[in-house]
Amino acid sequence: MAMEGYRGFLGLLVSALLVGFLSVIFTLIWVLHYRKGLGWDGGDLEFNWHPVLMVTGFVFIQGIAIIVYRLPWTWRCSKFLMKSIHAGLNTIATILAIVALVAVFDYHNVGSIPNMYSLHSWLGLAAVILYVLQLLLGFFIFLLPWAPVSLRAIAMPIHVYSGLFLFGTVIATSLMGLTEKLFFVLKDPAYSTSPPEGLFTNTLGLLMVLFGALILWIATRPQWKRPKEPDSTLLQSNGGTAEAVEGSAAVNLANNPDKSDPDPNSEARKRNFALDETGQRSTM
Amino acid sequence: MAMEGYRGFLGLLVSALLVGFLSVIFTLIWVLHYRKGLGWDGGDLEFNWHPVLMVTGFVFIQGIAIIVYRLPWTWRCSKFLMKSIHAGLNTIATILAIVALVAVFDYHNVGSIPNMYSLHSWLGLAAVILYVLQLLLGFFIFLLPWAPVSLRAIAMPIHVYSGLFLFGTVIATSLMGLTEKLFFVLKDPAYSTSPPEGLFTNTLGLLMVLFGALILWIATRPQWKRPKEPDSTLLQSNGGTAEAVEGSAAVNLANNPDKSDPDPNSEARKRNFALDETGQRSTM
Repeated sequence: MAMEGYRGFLGLLVSALLVGFLSVIFTLIWVLHYRKGLGWDGGDLEFNWHPVLMVTGFVFIQGIAIIVYRLPWTWRCSKFLMKSIHAGLNTIATILAIVALVAVFDYHNVGSIPNMYSLHSWLGLAAVILYVLQLLLGFFIFLLPWAPVSLRAIAMPIHVYSGLFLFGTVIATSLMGLTEKLFFVLKDPAYSTSPPEGLFTNTLGLLMVLFGALILWIATRPQWKRPKEPDSTLLQSNGGTAEAVEGSAAVNLANNPDKSDPDPNSEARKRNFALDETGQRSTM
Repeated sequence: MAMEGYRGFLGLLVSALLVGFLSVIFTLIWVLHYRKGLGWDGGDLEFNWHPVLMVTGFVFIQGIAIIVYRLPWTWRCSKFLMKSIHAGLNTIATILAIVALVAVFDYHNVGSIPNMYSLHSWLGLAAVILYVLQLLLGFFIFLLPWAPVSLRAIAMPIHVYSGLFLFGTVIATSLMGLTEKLFFVLKDPAYSTSPPEGLFTNTLGLLMVLFGALILWIATRPQWKRPKEPDSTLLQSNGGTAEAVEGSAAVNLANNPDKSDPDPNSEARKRNFALDETGQRSTM
C-alpha cells in the first residue's frame, strides 16, 4: 500500500471507529439519561438492553469484524489467525444480538405485548437467523481446513455479499426500531414537537448510517484488500472467481510478479490455501 | 458472457423486475384497498401519493437505472446512449421523489402536522438532496464530454459507491416510513394484533428488501459488467483506479488481449473515452 493510500485508509478507519463508538455512547446516553436506565426486571429497564446490545454487538462489533482483514498491520499475521478473529468478533456479535432478542421477548411476554407483528421484528429476526447461518457456513467452509478449493471459490463472493448486505439490513432494522420506540414513548412532549430526546435519537440514527457508509466503503475498496498469499494463486489463474469478485485482481496482478507462474503442484497449494499458515507477506 | 452466466443473469434480472414490480403493485393495493385511495385533496388521499411515488420512482425506477449497463443486449449500443438512459431514468426517479415530497409536505401543512421531526424525514430529505447532487455531478462529469479523464477516474468509484449506498438508504428510509404509517393508522384493530393490512404491508417491506438485494447483487458482479471500450484502456493501464474499483479488471484482462498494448496517442483516446461512440463491441 502506498503511503498516500495508507494515510487515507487510516483516516477513514479512525473515522469509522469514532462514529461507531459514538453510536454506542449515544445509545447508552439515550437509555440511561432519557429512558430510566438498564436492568433485568421484565420492564422498561430490561427492554433497554435491546438497543444497547444491538448497537454494540450487531452494529459496531459486526462492522469491525467486516474490516479486520483490511488492517495493514495484520497482513503479517497468518490468514488462519485473521479468520479466527473475524469469526470470533462475529460470534460475539451473534451472542449480543441473541441476548438483545431475549430482552425484548421477555419484556413483551411480561407485559403481555404481542411478539413479531411489526416489520422491524420480521426483518430483525430474519437478519439474526441469516447471520447465524452465515457464521456457521463461514466456519465450515472457510475456517475449518476441509472444504475443497472449488467450494471456497464459489462460496466466497456469496459470503462477502451476504455479509455486507446483512450488515446494511441490520442498520436499517435498527433505524426502524428507533422509529418505533420514539413514536411509542415520546407522547408528552410528543415526538412531533421535536423534543431534545427526539433530536438526540435522530442524530444517533444518522451516526449509524454514517458508520455503515464508512465500513462499507473500507470493505469494498480493492486497493485496501489484504494481499493474496503467494501460494494461493490457483484460484486466480484457473478459476478467477473468488478474487475477481472482490475486485482486487488487477491490483494484485500489478503487485505480484509470481502470478503468471502458477505452481503445478496443486495438491500442496490446496493445502496451503486451506491452512494459510505462511505467516509472512512481502507487502509489509 | 458464457451461456451459463447469461442464464444466471437473466434469471436474476427477471426476479428483480418481478419483485420490484410486485412492490409497486403492493403499494398501490395498500393505498387503494386499505387506505382510501389517491387524490390531491390536502388530506389522506394526497398523502397516499407519497408511498406510491417513492416506491415507484425512488425504489423501482432507481433500481432499474442502476443496472441498465448490465443488460447484455445493450452492449452494442453506444456508451453515450446508455449513459443518457441511466441519467434519464434517474431524472424520472428524482422528479417522482420530489412530487412525493410535495405531497407529504402539503398534507402536513394542510393538517397542521409538523414537518421534519422524525428520523424518517431527516434521512429521506438527506437522501433526496444527495441524490440530486449525485445526478448533477454525474451529468457534468460523465455525460458531458468535457471532464478530464483523470477526474472521471477519481470520480467513478465514488459515483458507483454513492449510487449503491443511496439506493440502500432509500429502501431503509421507505421501511421506516412504512413503520411510522402503520403505527399511526392501525389503531382498531391495532398493528400489534397483526391485522391483514399489517401482514400485507410487512410483506411489502420484505419485497423491497429482496428487490434491493437482487439489484445490488447484479450491480456488483464483475462478470456481468459491460465490456470496456477497446479504446478506453488508458485508465486501466496507467491509473488502474476506475476499473479496478469495480472489480472487472481481471475478467477484462482475460478477455481483452489488447490490454497490454496501450495506444500512445492519449489525446485521441481521451476524446474517444469521453464520447464513447464506438458503437460496436466484440463481446456480443
